[in-house]
This record gives sequence, C-alpha cells and structure tokens, in this order.
Amino acid sequence: MHAAATELTLRSGRAVFDEIRRAAARLDGVAKRTPVLTSRSLDAAVGGAVFLKADHLQCVGAFKFRGAYNAMAKLDDAARRRGVLTYSSGNHAQAVARVGQMLRIETVIVMPDNAPAPKLAATREYGARVITFDPSEQTREDVAAALPEARTHTLIPPFDHYDVIAGQGTCGLELLEQAPQLDRILVPTGGSGLLSGCSVVAHYLGTRCDVIGVEPALADDAARSLRSGRIEVAHDTGRTIADGTRTTSVGQRNFALMQAYTRDVVTVSEEAIRRAMRFVFERLKQVVEPSGVLGLAALMEGAVSADGRSGVILSGGNADPRLFAEIIGAPAGDR
Amino acid sequence: MHAAATELTLRSGRAVFDEIRRAAARLDGVAKRTPVLTSRSLDAAVGGAVFLKADHLQCVGAFKFRGAYNAMAKLDDAARRRGVLTYSSGNHAQAVARVGQMLRIETVIVMPDNAPAPKLAATREYGARVITFDPSEQTREDVAAALPEARTHTLIPPFDHYDVIAGQGTCGLELLEQAPQLDRILVPTGGSGLLSGCSVVAHYLGTRCDVIGVEPALADDAARSLRSGRIEVAHDTGRTIADGTRTTSVGQRNFALMQAYTRDVVTVSEEAIRRAMRFVFERLKQVVEPSGVLGLAALMEGAVSADGRSGVILSGGNADPRLFAEIIGAPAGDR
Repeated sequence: MHAAATELTLRSGRAVFDEIRRAAARLDGVAKRTPVLTSRSLDAAVGGAVFLKADHLQCVGAFKFRGAYNAMAKLDDAARRRGVLTYSSGNHAQAVARVGQMLRIETVIVMPDNAPAPKLAATREYGARVITFDPSEQTREDVAAALPEARTHTLIPPFDHYDVIAGQGTCGLELLEQAPQLDRILVPTGGSGLLSGCSVVAHYLGTRCDVIGVEPALADDAARSLRSGRIEVAHDTGRTIADGTRTTSVGQRNFALMQAYTRDVVTVSEEAIRRAMRFVFERLKQVVEPSGVLGLAALMEGAVSADGRSGVILSGGNADPRLFAEIIGAPAGDR
Repeated sequence: MHAAATELTLRSGRAVFDEIRRAAARLDGVAKRTPVLTSRSLDAAVGGAVFLKADHLQCVGAFKFRGAYNAMAKLDDAARRRGVLTYSSGNHAQAVARVGQMLRIETVIVMPDNAPAPKLAATREYGARVITFDPSEQTREDVAAALPEARTHTLIPPFDHYDVIAGQGTCGLELLEQAPQLDRILVPTGGSGLLSGCSVVAHYLGTRCDVIGVEPALADDAARSLRSGRIEVAHDTGRTIADGTRTTSVGQRNFALMQAYTRDVVTVSEEAIRRAMRFVFERLKQVVEPSGVLGLAALMEGAVSADGRSGVILSGGNADPRLFAEIIGAPAGDR
C-alpha cells in the first residue's frame, strides 16, 4: 500500500487547519451543510443550552462522507484509474463506496463480518467490492495488505490520514459557524479522525471552546492513551453497542493532534448510550446510531458539565433496525 | 359549549385565506418554520421530485400546534381566565395542553382510553387535566358536552373550527414558499383541518398545485364523502395503525372547503404505511408516526402520480415506541 510504505511525518496543527479550510471549499455544494437542532426539553433535562450538529443527515448518513470525499477528490487521474482500497467497520466503507460511485473510482473495501448488516448491504449497493473477514482471527490492516489490490490501489484509511482528518474537521468548522461561542464540543471518538479535526478547528479559530472526546467505557483506549501519553490498545471492543468505536486504537496522526489540542476524553456507560438514543427518538424524532449519540450520552450522564453552551456532534444515523427496535421498544420499567 | 350552541355559518375561502395570513403572523417566532427535506434515493424510488415538509419537527411533534396556538392566542382575557376544553385522540390534545402551558390557560382534555400511551403521558406532562373514556361506549363530543366545564370553558375542537383550520393552513403556506411550483401537495387527512387549510392556501396563492388528501383505506370516510357529496361516517377506524385519522367524519366547515378546493382524496393500504415508515427511518433518519407518512405512502404505492414536483406533509412524529419498534424491526423477509 502506497501510504503505509512511506515514513510517517507529522504535520503541524496550522498545516492541518489550512487543509481543513481547503476541504471546506472542496466539499461546498457536494456534502450537505447539515442543520443544528435544539430542544427546550433537552436543555431543561441537562441544565444548559445544547446545539446538536445533525451530521447523521450527511450523505451516506454519517460525517465519514466528508473525509472520504476530501481524500478521493484530491487523487490525480492516474490514481483514480487504479482505484481505492480501504478497511472499515461501516460508515467509512459506505462513504468511500459512495464517493467512488460519484467520481467513477473503483473501490475495494475490507469489512469485518460482524459489521451491521445494513452497513454491509449499503456499501455493496453503492457499487463497492466488499471483502469480509473474521475480526477475531485477523486484523483488517493485515487482510487489506495481503490483497493484490494493495499493490495498485490507493489506500484511504478511515482516520489515520491527513486528508481524512481535514475533511472530517469541516463538521466542527460548520458547527462553530452555526452555533457561535460554544463552551465545549463533545465528539464521538473511535480512531479519532473527527475528534482530532475538530480539536484543531476550535484552537485555530481562536475560540475558548474545549473539544472533548467521548467513547464507550467498554472501548476506552482513547481516554487511556491521553492519560498515559502513548497510544493504548482496546480489547474486546465488540462488547459495546457503539460499533463505530470498535477500533483497536487511535491513529498516530490523530493522537499527535489530540495531545496538542484535545481537552479531554471521557467515557459513558452502555445504558447512557441507550437512554440518549431513546431521548433523541422520543423528543427530537431523529434516528441516531449508538456511536452517534455518545456526546449527548456524556451530557445526560453527567460525565461532562452542561453549564453554558455545549455543542454535540450527532455523527451517524445508520442504526441497525433490530438493535434500534430493541432499544426504543424496551418497556418503560426496563429503562 | 359556546361554539356548539351557535348556528353554523360557513365562511368563504377568501375569508379563510385572509385568516391564514393573520395566523402566519401570529405564529411567527412561536411555531417552528420546519424544514423541507429531500432525498435522492426517494426521488429515484418514486420517479419524481419530492419535497417533504417536516412538520413532525413542529412544537409538540405535530402540525396541530399551529391550529391550537392560533385559536387560543385569539382568546380575550376573560376567556383565558375561564379555560379551554377540547377532545382529541392525541396530537391536538398535546398541542392544546402545551399552548395552555405557554399562555397560562387551564386546559381540560377528553381523550379515548385507547390513545397511544406516550400521547396521553405527554398531554398530562404539559399540565392538562385529562379525562379518558371508552370510545366503543361514548363519543368524545358527548363526553365533553356532559362535563361541568362545558358551561365555562371555551371549546377548541380539533378540526371543525376556522381558527384551527387557519393555523393548520400555515403549514401549506410555508411549504409553497419553501418549495415553489409544486404540481401537487399530499396531505394526511382525518378530520381534514390540515387538508382544508392547505387546499385554500394553494387556491388563493394562484398556483396550479393540486391538493390531495390521503387516508387509510380502513378509514376512508373523507374519500367517500367527496364522492357522494355529503359527509359520510367511518366505521371501525380502530383497525388502522394511523391513529391520527380515527375520526368519525370530516368536519362541516372542513367539508365545505374541501368540496370547493380539494382536488381528490385517495386511500392507502396498511402495508404501504408501514413501508413508508421504514423508508423514512432507513433513508431519512426521521421518526414519523403512521398518520404522518400517509402522503409518502400514497406516492410509494402509486395511489397518486409522482410526475414532476410533489410536496408531502410529514404531519406528526409522535409514534408509539412499541409499534415503531415492531414496524422497523420486522425481518427483511416480512416486508
């Protein structure tokens, strides 16, 4: 794979911020400028003003479209003709497949066989060639590296890539334009592409806004990494319902940016994730997947103060219907 | 009840339209100007451009807020001190209760005991006094008329009232401003407050837009009424999952306006309602109740041509969680 063969050179936050600005121009008129939702009952419930960036309404139902488009639109004609290779548990897969369809680039995507069925189906529907593997046996990086396409296709990994980080960071840029003077932004985190991009944005816009990552307590590697000062590995992440956060660890590029610009990473319980999904269903009439409500869950569970003005990124809406039905249909006594 | 005691005087469409304009001014800054959603996959699925007016995101999760607020905001101080009485299967009840809370007006609301539990609970949470009855034994009008409050409180019925019709008509006014040059608007219909208001709007704006009502085949009284030229009664409407359309018949004021300005009323199957709810869940990430998707169900089932540009009002989002879970969680093979 071309990217993996090169030595890692870390970029400055300023360089990443400049690329986020260019990504915003590239995405203008292609990605949706998703709305910011507010709810009086939510503000009353958490005791502060909350601004929900509805990126679950983005193309392919997730912020991942932003990063995939930014990275793939920058490929030259020769690279586009060869194709793109990636690995993903779901939303990045759909995003790469959809952008490939838009830009007429062949896409080959390695996905774990325990990815939600709708995410596998949608990725295939967008025209990608999907290769599944058993994540208890192999890593997705190893599966991808062993493919013949690893020699020809450009690898666009899901988070550890500056063009992906920059594209994803445009979500935070929009939120800070739509809801100014936020005291904090809560960002779901798996590999930390969105978190690192948003952290850079808030810093270089000169705001006093803290950017805080949120992950499930059952997949708390980002929080541990920030504390220990080195990239820690997550174990048994299949236990969390937040499938978008089942990454082994944060990316190297992401971690360097997080150390410089991310205020904190907090964790939430599985029950808080379920409660936040039910609240969003009942009060906001929105469908948000488990990983997508992590920020709201942190506010509702009190893992983060809700004083003042909080931005929350609703990062994806591709919920497995059966799991969603189970969560919202649970009798009131079970809540 | 004051209103019921007076003789019925029908108003001209022009007079109703003028009141809709005044209602729009009254609701400005109070009701939400709800967004219009579009979806490439929806357009492809039905073969035409579709503009979904997301009034399930209105205050209290339904267009009913518009009519309740318009009617109650017009009450003078003496009437406000006496209170408001109404009957409703759900969304109008919530709307009257919420407006009562906002304007500090006591509200007494008669609801059938088979109304969805969340609608009963929300109405009480807004501070209304709720009186339930068995709809197989009594009519809601009779229950309301027998209450002592019938002598003191102003009755704001759910649809057969010009201030309610005018408030609800503002939904159509906004849609035609947000999505111009529509060929048709599809409107869910129970008592036909929304349908009659929207029909007047499209006519007096001088558009060439047809306004078409949609009701469940299991509660097809509006369609039969328009054909026969007199108000027909619905039987056994409890069989449809679209609880918002379980009215006995359309209102007299509504019917007079429908005869003059409504192009047609079509019916859809229960299965089409379920399919439309699943589509909205999967592709638009929205929670819409069964009555709320009737217009979309008509397009998807082919009950109405989708040629050109179709407006569809998503009228409510207060879905019963258990029913919603059952509908979206059904295995693919059951669809």
